[in-house]
Amino acid sequence: MADINSPLESGGVEIGVTTGPIRGSRKVHVGARTGSGVQVAMREIDLEGGEPSVRVYDTSGPYTDPDVAIDINAGLAPHRADWIKARGDVEDYEAREVKPEDNGQLGPDRSGGVPTFPNVVKRPLRAKSGMNVTQMHYARQGIITPEMEYVAERENLGREIAADLVRDGQDWGAAIPDVITPEFVRDEVARGRAIIPSNINHPESEPMAIGRNFLVKINANIGNSAVASDVAQEVDKMVWATRWGADTIMDLSTGRNIHDTREWIIRNSAVPVGTVPIYQALEKVGGIAEELTWEIFRDTLIEQAEQGVDYFTIHAGVRLPYVPLAAKRVTGIVSRGGSIMAKWCLAHHKESFLYEHFDEITEICAAYDIAYSLGDGLRPGSIADANDEAQFAELYTLGELTKRAWAQDVQVMIEGPGHVPMHKIKENMDKQLEACGEAPFYTLGPLVTDIAPGYDHITSGIGAAQIGWYGTAMLCYVTPKEHLGLPDRDDVKVGVVTYKLAAHAADLAKGHPAAKVRDDALSKARFEFRWRDQFNLSLDPDTAEQYHDQTLPAEGAKTAHFCSMCGPKFCSMKISQEVRDFAAKQNAGPESFLAAGGTAEEAEAGMEEMSRVYKEKGERLYLPEDAAE
Amino acid sequence: MADINSPLESGGVEIGVTTGPIRGSRKVHVGARTGSGVQVAMREIDLEGGEPSVRVYDTSGPYTDPDVAIDINAGLAPHRADWIKARGDVEDYEAREVKPEDNGQLGPDRSGGVPTFPNVVKRPLRAKSGMNVTQMHYARQGIITPEMEYVAERENLGREIAADLVRDGQDWGAAIPDVITPEFVRDEVARGRAIIPSNINHPESEPMAIGRNFLVKINANIGNSAVASDVAQEVDKMVWATRWGADTIMDLSTGRNIHDTREWIIRNSAVPVGTVPIYQALEKVGGIAEELTWEIFRDTLIEQAEQGVDYFTIHAGVRLPYVPLAAKRVTGIVSRGGSIMAKWCLAHHKESFLYEHFDEITEICAAYDIAYSLGDGLRPGSIADANDEAQFAELYTLGELTKRAWAQDVQVMIEGPGHVPMHKIKENMDKQLEACGEAPFYTLGPLVTDIAPGYDHITSGIGAAQIGWYGTAMLCYVTPKEHLGLPDRDDVKVGVVTYKLAAHAADLAKGHPAAKVRDDALSKARFEFRWRDQFNLSLDPDTAEQYHDQTLPAEGAKTAHFCSMCGPKFCSMKISQEVRDFAAKQNAGPESFLAAGGTAEEAEAGMEEMSRVYKEKGERLYLPEDAAE
Repeated sequence: MADINSPLESGGVEIGVTTGPIRGSRKVHVGARTGSGVQVAMREIDLEGGEPSVRVYDTSGPYTDPDVAIDINAGLAPHRADWIKARGDVEDYEAREVKPEDNGQLGPDRSGGVPTFPNVVKRPLRAKSGMNVTQMHYARQGIITPEMEYVAERENLGREIAADLVRDGQDWGAAIPDVITPEFVRDEVARGRAIIPSNINHPESEPMAIGRNFLVKINANIGNSAVASDVAQEVDKMVWATRWGADTIMDLSTGRNIHDTREWIIRNSAVPVGTVPIYQALEKVGGIAEELTWEIFRDTLIEQAEQGVDYFTIHAGVRLPYVPLAAKRVTGIVSRGGSIMAKWCLAHHKESFLYEHFDEITEICAAYDIAYSLGDGLRPGSIADANDEAQFAELYTLGELTKRAWAQDVQVMIEGPGHVPMHKIKENMDKQLEACGEAPFYTLGPLVTDIAPGYDHITSGIGAAQIGWYGTAMLCYVTPKEHLGLPDRDDVKVGVVTYKLAAHAADLAKGHPAAKVRDDALSKARFEFRWRDQFNLSLDPDTAEQYHDQTLPAEGAKTAHFCSMCGPKFCSMKISQEVRDFAAKQNAGPESFLAAGGTAEEAEAGMEEMSRVYKEKGERLYLPEDAAE
Repeated sequence: MADINSPLESGGVEIGVTTGPIRGSRKVHVGARTGSGVQVAMREIDLEGGEPSVRVYDTSGPYTDPDVAIDINAGLAPHRADWIKARGDVEDYEAREVKPEDNGQLGPDRSGGVPTFPNVVKRPLRAKSGMNVTQMHYARQGIITPEMEYVAERENLGREIAADLVRDGQDWGAAIPDVITPEFVRDEVARGRAIIPSNINHPESEPMAIGRNFLVKINANIGNSAVASDVAQEVDKMVWATRWGADTIMDLSTGRNIHDTREWIIRNSAVPVGTVPIYQALEKVGGIAEELTWEIFRDTLIEQAEQGVDYFTIHAGVRLPYVPLAAKRVTGIVSRGGSIMAKWCLAHHKESFLYEHFDEITEICAAYDIAYSLGDGLRPGSIADANDEAQFAELYTLGELTKRAWAQDVQVMIEGPGHVPMHKIKENMDKQLEACGEAPFYTLGPLVTDIAPGYDHITSGIGAAQIGWYGTAMLCYVTPKEHLGLPDRDDVKVGVVTYKLAAHAADLAKGHPAAKVRDDALSKARFEFRWRDQFNLSLDPDTAEQYHDQTLPAEGAKTAHFCSMCGPKFCSMKISQEVRDFAAKQNAGPESFLAAGGTAEEAEAGMEEMSRVYKEKGERLYLPEDAAE
């Protein structure tokens, strides 16, 4: 199918999953420089005019690789399986039996009747008794895993150390090296400053790191639709989001067939998959929060662990005494998980069972290498509630839980707000770093104002770029439909691209050594009127070209030395080239024009000669007529 | 016509100007509390459920007032005319004769044959000999003009001093008072920290201030289209942009009929109109920059001054010695005005005639009260070129020119970049404040990355929100078509709303006392499921409602106590209400739940009783079926 962002297609009845290269680029596999044979997928954009090609980070998986035959009934190749088994610390066992309630019995059937995945693993893996299979555990043993090697090469985008690398950025105390080595990855994971979500039952995933000293990542939430959709459509939501740059996805499905839907998604996902297990547990008790029990919740964790969920959002910081703190808020509790637990705590007037059983949850995480995403159930839902007592009380509890998880070598990231005005964003980052021992921060937005429903991808993109700059490791996207309705295909793409640009802006501001290469290549292409290169280097080549063609549709306009803003007659880029040519012809840098510390008057004397030469060679601004329209 | 953002309408052949109230609001006129009779237009949003109505800043002019009959052939009422004449310092005189070249002879006719405005003023006003009619001049004489009174009331949004006002913000050294008084406005204008663009030949405008201690403003650029359009369409671009929040507009038309098009726009504009006079001057010399002369430029200034242009972008800071500094850049000179002047300087090897004749330009500005917008002709066009020598060399010259303009009591603002990564934004603001003596800063974006063409309203909105927070007084919008093509009606709206939300986010972060009222009202409406109030309080009620209806179209869903995200069965807002009710019933603040400085354990003892009460009254989460779907 075409990869143009088209509302007609998104409203269509039958679509397959989206495949084919992203316009103007091709899949490459770069061998890790350790020589271990680990091959890292990247995307390479070839340029015109003899310019060197540009490698970019690629989350799109095998779907953009023409050499891979995609069959969603088979799932992706389990390329990590050998790495996992080679470590000798896992065993397979009889899977927990799928129960009817796993697929929900209540509420409308939104799945269109999802069939069982034909290729379900009957014997999943878990750690052998007494073993711990987390990347953090290996890291702390000094072991560099293939996953760590993969991450190192991926973060470097295959680049060598630039001899003339000038670091330029304000990293607010981060520790970003010039080049990411496997040892650096290991060390970051060991310290808890980065995580590599990698459930041993999700061998299809391409390893990636979430941490302040790596590229800023983004997450896209998907979930079953309000309208019936076939399985390919459910899978394609993940494919579509990762095509445009989602580094992880969260499956937030509710209602019927959520177990089967999740199986289809994980088996076909090249990125880590996160969930909020309490959502499914709530379905199992008919939506009645106070009927939740630890046993039902625990069983749900095992169910999802065996399927291969890479990280769990656990709202264990919503403790009983914090619940009433939300009473005085303008918008109370806006987190679904948070409000489920608040309801449970209030009804029973007991401490949260998630908090009480936290160490047992951690044991499960350790046996499968599931990372925690400690949920911010008391995040502010409005500007008025930002940075309040409830929010920070929970944050400090998440810090306490982080240390308890780390005691079992379980990877942790921390979820953050929400709605926060700009002047209160940095406090969130600073407090999180302090409270949670530099565990990666994973924020939703934050939205910097409440008054723009319909544009909340932008209100939150503003906050996301800033908090990413300050140190947030992963940004959870927001679509234009936030607060209003369910996102469609176009909304997902707009949300992903918005967050990708926010994350990239953060990388630039932090001074990530590999970030600026793409900006420079695109701007050079723009200056030189290499239109196709400009499109191809952009985050969304299809939309860029489409917008260009709305004004200048002719194919010739893509090589024309002008653009639609000024037209062929006058062009500031062209004048700049004249300035440059002139300076070059004088065989002197621009410095010579300004006497050292000098004034215009001092410089002018030497310019008389230059003026004469320029006039002799002076060109008109016009281009030949045939280059125009 | 409908005010829904509709692509079909924007592509239509014949449309009138957009009139009618913005959905869910009505025009009100608030008398200045000085009792002088000055009536200030605002928009009032009435709410449901006994909530107090919310007043918002209104740029939309008489077009949203059902009591005003709109006739674009007559133009708006010249409501400032009496104020201007009452000062006794102006005279009318025979207007400069319109010449054929004023309407252009070269290039494609993009105007569709714009007729002459039927009601052209034949005898414009200017200062009497020896007089100075600028708002700055009056301010420095200690005179509070009606324009200043209007601004004061407008900035207060009609509010009284809130007794419980708690200032919350980081204003980076701004001096925002709790309440804006006319005397405060006068003082800010006298110091040069704010401007009130108000050409005496544009008496139709509603006074507004641009300054760091006022609400952050936004500008929308308009210009004649690439395709033929009728006069109503040209005027409607201004009407449409101001409907959604543009505080000023700039007419950047080129080609034919630009004089006549401008006349139509100014006569019908309730907001200040800015131009870049060099664009028209260039047309007069056939697009050949080096044939520009001071005489042609001066004549163009008089032409536009008589029409009522409120501010001129003048690129007088592009000095000869700075031009070669742009040679080593990735994207050279990207400003049209800057490159015109660079070309002229290089060709003649002379200092810029704008710089040489700056004091004469200032004399013209003083005679009509035209504000300077000192152009940043050397602004960076890429991340690579941000904050470079060329840019800051020009900025310091703009500071020098500011002082020269102020010596003649002429109002000044300073244009700023461009493309700047986040970590270099604040330096722009700091240097501008220092170099230009706190004259208002007026920035384009800045764009925080180059890699997202098609989304540059967002890349620039991120930078705009930040620089607005740091102190920029007005943000020049960028549309999704930036770098790619010409914006259509939808693009203009998206650009304006994006910048409006960025400006508001800046106001919030600065702690503007009136800003948070709207956020709180909207969030309260959201929490209480007053859907219509939520739509009406938003920056774009049409899009908000449209998005909501895509998922839940039924009229009943607009009063339902749930939303499409969680559905009727489960709702975090509803649980929050339960938490609140519970706390209220205990007749104690949430503080009572946490013993002073206490722990969960200490608090738990007192909660046993509460638990019993709650269980007795416990409610299920379900709403009755008929409230659902």
